[in-house]
Amino acid sequence: MSGKGFNVPPSAEFVARVSGIATMFKLPFQKTADGLDAAFVGVPIDTGTSNRPGARFGPRHIRAESAMLRAYSGWTRAAPYESIRVADIGDINVNLFDLKDTCKKIREAYREIVATGCIPLTLGGDHTIAYPILQAVAERLVHTQQALLQVCNTNGFRVVEVVECWHKSLVPLMEEVRSQMGTGPVYLSFDIDSLDPAFAPGTGTPEIAGLTPIQGLEIIRGCRGLNLVGCDLVEVSPPYDTTGNTALTGANLLFEMMCVLPKVKYY
Amino acid sequence: MSGKGFNVPPSAEFVARVSGIATMFKLPFQKTADGLDAAFVGVPIDTGTSNRPGARFGPRHIRAESAMLRAYSGWTRAAPYESIRVADIGDINVNLFDLKDTCKKIREAYREIVATGCIPLTLGGDHTIAYPILQAVAERLVHTQQALLQVCNTNGFRVVEVVECWHKSLVPLMEEVRSQMGTGPVYLSFDIDSLDPAFAPGTGTPEIAGLTPIQGLEIIRGCRGLNLVGCDLVEVSPPYDTTGNTALTGANLLFEMMCVLPKVKYY
Amino acid sequence: MSGKGFNVPPSAEFVARVSGIATMFKLPFQKTADGLDAAFVGVPIDTGTSNRPGARFGPRHIRAESAMLRAYSGWTRAAPYESIRVADIGDINVNLFDLKDTCKKIREAYREIVATGCIPLTLGGDHTIAYPILQAVAERLVHTQQALLQVCNTNGFRVVEVVECWHKSLVPLMEEVRSQMGTGPVYLSFDIDSLDPAFAPGTGTPEIAGLTPIQGLEIIRGCRGLNLVGCDLVEVSPPYDTTGNTALTGANLLFEMMCVLPKVKYY
Amino acid sequence: MSGKGFNVPPSAEFVARVSGIATMFKLPFQKTADGLDAAFVGVPIDTGTSNRPGARFGPRHIRAESAMLRAYSGWTRAAPYESIRVADIGDINVNLFDLKDTCKKIREAYREIVATGCIPLTLGGDHTIAYPILQAVAERLVHTQQALLQVCNTNGFRVVEVVECWHKSLVPLMEEVRSQMGTGPVYLSFDIDSLDPAFAPGTGTPEIAGLTPIQGLEIIRGCRGLNLVGCDLVEVSPPYDTTGNTALTGANLLFEMMCVLPKVKYY
Amino acid sequence: MSGKGFNVPPSAEFVARVSGIATMFKLPFQKTADGLDAAFVGVPIDTGTSNRPGARFGPRHIRAESAMLRAYSGWTRAAPYESIRVADIGDINVNLFDLKDTCKKIREAYREIVATGCIPLTLGGDHTIAYPILQAVAERLVHTQQALLQVCNTNGFRVVEVVECWHKSLVPLMEEVRSQMGTGPVYLSFDIDSLDPAFAPGTGTPEIAGLTPIQGLEIIRGCRGLNLVGCDLVEVSPPYDTTGNTALTGANLLFEMMCVLPKVKYY
Amino acid sequence: MSGKGFNVPPSAEFVARVSGIATMFKLPFQKTADGLDAAFVGVPIDTGTSNRPGARFGPRHIRAESAMLRAYSGWTRAAPYESIRVADIGDINVNLFDLKDTCKKIREAYREIVATGCIPLTLGGDHTIAYPILQAVAERLVHTQQALLQVCNTNGFRVVEVVECWHKSLVPLMEEVRSQMGTGPVYLSFDIDSLDPAFAPGTGTPEIAGLTPIQGLEIIRGCRGLNLVGCDLVEVSPPYDTTGNTALTGANLLFEMMCVLPKVKYY
Repeated sequence: MSGKGFNVPPSAEFVARVSGIATMFKLPFQKTADGLDAAFVGVPIDTGTSNRPGARFGPRHIRAESAMLRAYSGWTRAAPYESIRVADIGDINVNLFDLKDTCKKIREAYREIVATGCIPLTLGGDHTIAYPILQAVAERLVHTQQALLQVCNTNGFRVVEVVECWHKSLVPLMEEVRSQMGTGPVYLSFDIDSLDPAFAPGTGTPEIAGLTPIQGLEIIRGCRGLNLVGCDLVEVSPPYDTTGNTALTGANLLFEMMCVLPKVKYY
Repeated sequence: MSGKGFNVPPSAEFVARVSGIATMFKLPFQKTADGLDAAFVGVPIDTGTSNRPGARFGPRHIRAESAMLRAYSGWTRAAPYESIRVADIGDINVNLFDLKDTCKKIREAYREIVATGCIPLTLGGDHTIAYPILQAVAERLVHTQQALLQVCNTNGFRVVEVVECWHKSLVPLMEEVRSQMGTGPVYLSFDIDSLDPAFAPGTGTPEIAGLTPIQGLEIIRGCRGLNLVGCDLVEVSPPYDTTGNTALTGANLLFEMMCVLPKVKYY
Repeated sequence: MSGKGFNVPPSAEFVARVSGIATMFKLPFQKTADGLDAAFVGVPIDTGTSNRPGARFGPRHIRAESAMLRAYSGWTRAAPYESIRVADIGDINVNLFDLKDTCKKIREAYREIVATGCIPLTLGGDHTIAYPILQAVAERLVHTQQALLQVCNTNGFRVVEVVECWHKSLVPLMEEVRSQMGTGPVYLSFDIDSLDPAFAPGTGTPEIAGLTPIQGLEIIRGCRGLNLVGCDLVEVSPPYDTTGNTALTGANLLFEMMCVLPKVKYY
Repeated sequence: MSGKGFNVPPSAEFVARVSGIATMFKLPFQKTADGLDAAFVGVPIDTGTSNRPGARFGPRHIRAESAMLRAYSGWTRAAPYESIRVADIGDINVNLFDLKDTCKKIREAYREIVATGCIPLTLGGDHTIAYPILQAVAERLVHTQQALLQVCNTNGFRVVEVVECWHKSLVPLMEEVRSQMGTGPVYLSFDIDSLDPAFAPGTGTPEIAGLTPIQGLEIIRGCRGLNLVGCDLVEVSPPYDTTGNTALTGANLLFEMMCVLPKVKYY
Repeated sequence: MSGKGFNVPPSAEFVARVSGIATMFKLPFQKTADGLDAAFVGVPIDTGTSNRPGARFGPRHIRAESAMLRAYSGWTRAAPYESIRVADIGDINVNLFDLKDTCKKIREAYREIVATGCIPLTLGGDHTIAYPILQAVAERLVHTQQALLQVCNTNGFRVVEVVECWHKSLVPLMEEVRSQMGTGPVYLSFDIDSLDPAFAPGTGTPEIAGLTPIQGLEIIRGCRGLNLVGCDLVEVSPPYDTTGNTALTGANLLFEMMCVLPKVKYY
Repeated sequence: MSGKGFNVPPSAEFVARVSGIATMFKLPFQKTADGLDAAFVGVPIDTGTSNRPGARFGPRHIRAESAMLRAYSGWTRAAPYESIRVADIGDINVNLFDLKDTCKKIREAYREIVATGCIPLTLGGDHTIAYPILQAVAERLVHTQQALLQVCNTNGFRVVEVVECWHKSLVPLMEEVRSQMGTGPVYLSFDIDSLDPAFAPGTGTPEIAGLTPIQGLEIIRGCRGLNLVGCDLVEVSPPYDTTGNTALTGANLLFEMMCVLPKVKYY
């Protein structure tokens, strides 16, 4: 932990990457969101999945692989840990035998989190979880899911079909998104299966001809400047992630989300 | 089964995706091609493979993963099952110990299939099978294989090397192909190893720097309007497909092939 | 299909093992149990599982691996297909989002099956399914599960702890079981996780120091002579079955169960 | 946490198995051994391995799989959490680039642990770690490793070759061990590769024809009554543990070790 | 390499296990059997397999895993490399498209090998290869295959069914075998699928309830004193050997076969 | 071996791909670099890795998969084996327990190699190995690593960040590189993790949003005409390469490197 009350993960120079309890990015674990600007929180369910299960293990594996990440971004020059206070607040307790009860538990837990002013960065879990989280958290959303990009403004949804994203950078699209969103609150929900299954094989309902991780980074980095009030990364399914690389990709995307939160500084 | 004699797979809303005998797209199984506009048929061999075997299990695994597909295409707006009568007619019986005898068996079986006016959509099996199928079926071909694109017209072959396909959409190429092919009969043979191994790891002779699934879809969708008389998807090798995603990609490509058959309507 | 109305799977001498729609043991598929002495039926759920999911794919994978089995048992000299009429009647339609509704669906479907006089041989699915099946089917049970052996007679349960089974043949125990059971109806429920995870790694809640397959065969073969009214093999979880060998073991155990049904002859 | 200062993991009835930061058996994490009767501690190295690496991930994966364990042993009737105060104190910081420095770090950390009177239960890591731990901890040892059983008494080592263990229960051997050991301090080091690779495939130097898990349990349960001053479970190598079952077996063996610590009560 | 013309693999103390071209046990490669007492030779086919292919990669993977073996046997005290001159003579060239031609190639190559007085130790390949090898080599055989033990004496075959081997040591059986075989030439063919699939998952046609590796060692060690003229280890199928442990088990069994060749000394 | 002293691997038409000791591209093995224009040499370490180990098995697996390559390049029309004399000279002996000693061993071995005028083509091993190799070999370098492209000229390093490479062909960049490098000696070090993990999942520290294999080929082919004095391909980690495709990609890249060596002819 650094001065000023920040939580800075240990550098791999001093603490071996492989050493330590698997919290998100090796951040300290605390039971509530009190005193935090942002918090990583897991929602380990897959009972909303109609085909391949396994996303219940998403939070556990994303945390495990997140040990590979560095404390700063050499590419974007973001310094999140020196800008905001972040911790891992563990998982929502879920009921694997009753989806409605789980949704209620999620909604209640997120109400408590956001009541403290803390921004939740969620590790899914299947995509069902976004609904009760949104009920508790959000009014506007940037939604990357099932191979399309839903942009919701005050007048309703704007859907960008994946075919419009083929063969191109999404930087111009995100400029447009930022201008549409203005200063209103935005919630970013990122379904890992929006990436082509080559890049994220460990997921429940792979859709071919999806986005590339480059485009994924362009979407998330393009959210810098928006008034983000919450983010999630869902549908990592470890039983289909034979190398751990899908969980690692999820950890990278969550790191990038943290880097575009409102108060984060760039050096 | 719907009215008018069509076979429409059950919606996942009413029948769980995981439930049911693994026929292609959960279509009914029938023993012959009688009364069908198109038929899925498997040819489970790999005895023509010089390196990694396993494609003999291609039809079984493509069928298993095909349960994830929907009954209509939200992207192209094709409605195949309401346009043509399709079923799964099972596998050709093969002789794993005698490739010549297998080729004879394939040729004879396909003669019977095409004699009924039914268009065969073949699940391979290694690429050897295309030869006896073509002997029974085709005169012209669009051939995607081994990282090149062979276009056969009345004057001979046209070969498009993969390097000509790098970094670009294949929509323009397919316009050219359609104009060259005109109204003559066309057979489409798609080797899954024409895709880069990142997208189709489960194959016998992976070739790096191959096509993307986006380009694969552009090729197949670009065949709409051609007089297709047969299609195949070959070289899915399940022992190297650790997540099932290669078989799933194969199922998607076969679905797209069905969608560009001559009589298919778009809504 | 043989004479006398029996269904005999094709010999691998004439039809390649890898060829054909994946029904159980390559038996014909029929929609109802009418006219059958016994029927293989799948119940593809895992929503009763508290830890690792995946058993929903059990029926599909057991069927796929069952193609390796022979039509007769060289060891026991049983000739099931020439003694009783058996078919694969597909899967119960399940509701992955509502376990109670699924149980209701199972109960109703099994009432129909047993009403025809047909003995159900069930491919699970997680162990929850045994409860609604038993409600529809059974009065007495031999129950191998979670590393113990529950023997239920009219006076209640007899539980044999796994530690009593270590280092020994179970032939004597089964003699005792047969004598206790007499001529009353018996239902055999076999949880694959009663085997040590070395022998059945692909399961949801592995328990170490379990039974060996030799002991598994001794239990099932030891049921010969009992008045079996139903059998199930549950908890095969394909995402954890990296070689398919757990599904194959399940197929073998189901074959052995079929061989000890009341009317089966031995040559 | 229970009354009397004990740490009792939550029951799966109230908290889903999949929910929560992956500490050992879901016990609370604390930074030092202060106030503990026993502590789980990880030593994540594999730099002492001459062939297959990967044991550096052993502690992380054993913790992850340990969520499947129950809070009491139904078989032995041990109630560890209501007898002694146990927690997870995380991992020793290691130096993956300098084995000598790592040994020094281990030795120093264990001196601190044992100085508090706490018994360390170690999650390896390769077998090298036993040496610096022993330097800090032990005088007598029961050592199960590389397919032999080393029994050290005041007069020196007694080695039991694996071939002497074939085809038999080890209960009599352990009676002998207990009588030889008497009341002196004993350290138990268990190399997972002493089990046959069928039961523990995820290890660095598999040796065929090894012990069964039944024999492993007999060894550990046979230590009940000994004056155990420390235990370790080493050589779980997750990259070779394709199902997680080796890590799960390791977690089970560590649970059994905790159950035979001096002050543990049986109900 | 030692004095007296022996080939002794380098000790792991001086040459890292992971270093070096993958020859069998890191022995020197030579093109012919000239001057050798025994030779390791690979026959990389699987075209005789009716279900799962992959054994064509058996020799390559057995060689790769064999680097883990030591130069002497600590258990049996055999010192093969100081008793006989052994080398790796590579693979027979095979024809994957013509099984008859392959058999001819095998027969001819083995005639050349045995003409020099060298004993072939064969790495399969599927079990078909034993036939042409035997045509070139053997008169008598000990044959462990498909879960039974065929003992051939001058009066014909003796078959020991696997059920006779359950729950017991095979040491007594092998005493009987030795007495029946006397001093006549014996060929030992060991199909890895005679082991239970838990111990050898990487094989083409797994048969449950098979032998244990302990029994496998008892069979091979029980051949000491016989007049062995050739040995093979067949049916290792790497695509189904997710950890490499089946290939490693094969390498161990081949090492044990080498140790019971006629001229090998024990220290 | 061909006339003129060249080593030409056997065509798959005459020798089965699966047959033969696994040397690089099936080239002859020789112990020293004497008489060679270029030599493949392995450096099997991973002890410089801070997270996932396994690269120690890189050389073994790259050699195994290299059997799939052809003797000439149909795409570039390079004919390396008829232009220069190449062989596999095995692996450097390494010390897995002492990284400094390993570096010394590497440095000394490479001094001997380059003293003969032979160009080393190195199979890694982790990226640490490039340092002692460079000490022995190089003055200028093209360095593709950790998702950036380091171009070293006489005035120092030029670093091209990966984000500058997104969505484009690297042909223009390489033109620039060639003009900067002129005729001075160049060493090419290619870290397989510069490719996106979709294309090279089997590596120790995957970095998302990396290069494509198409860009990888553009970099290597773009080196044609440079005065290459050495090349390496590092960080292939087989335990994370579940299909072998990363090793195969590594073999392809090494083949392409050989094709752009100074004396290689094109037909």
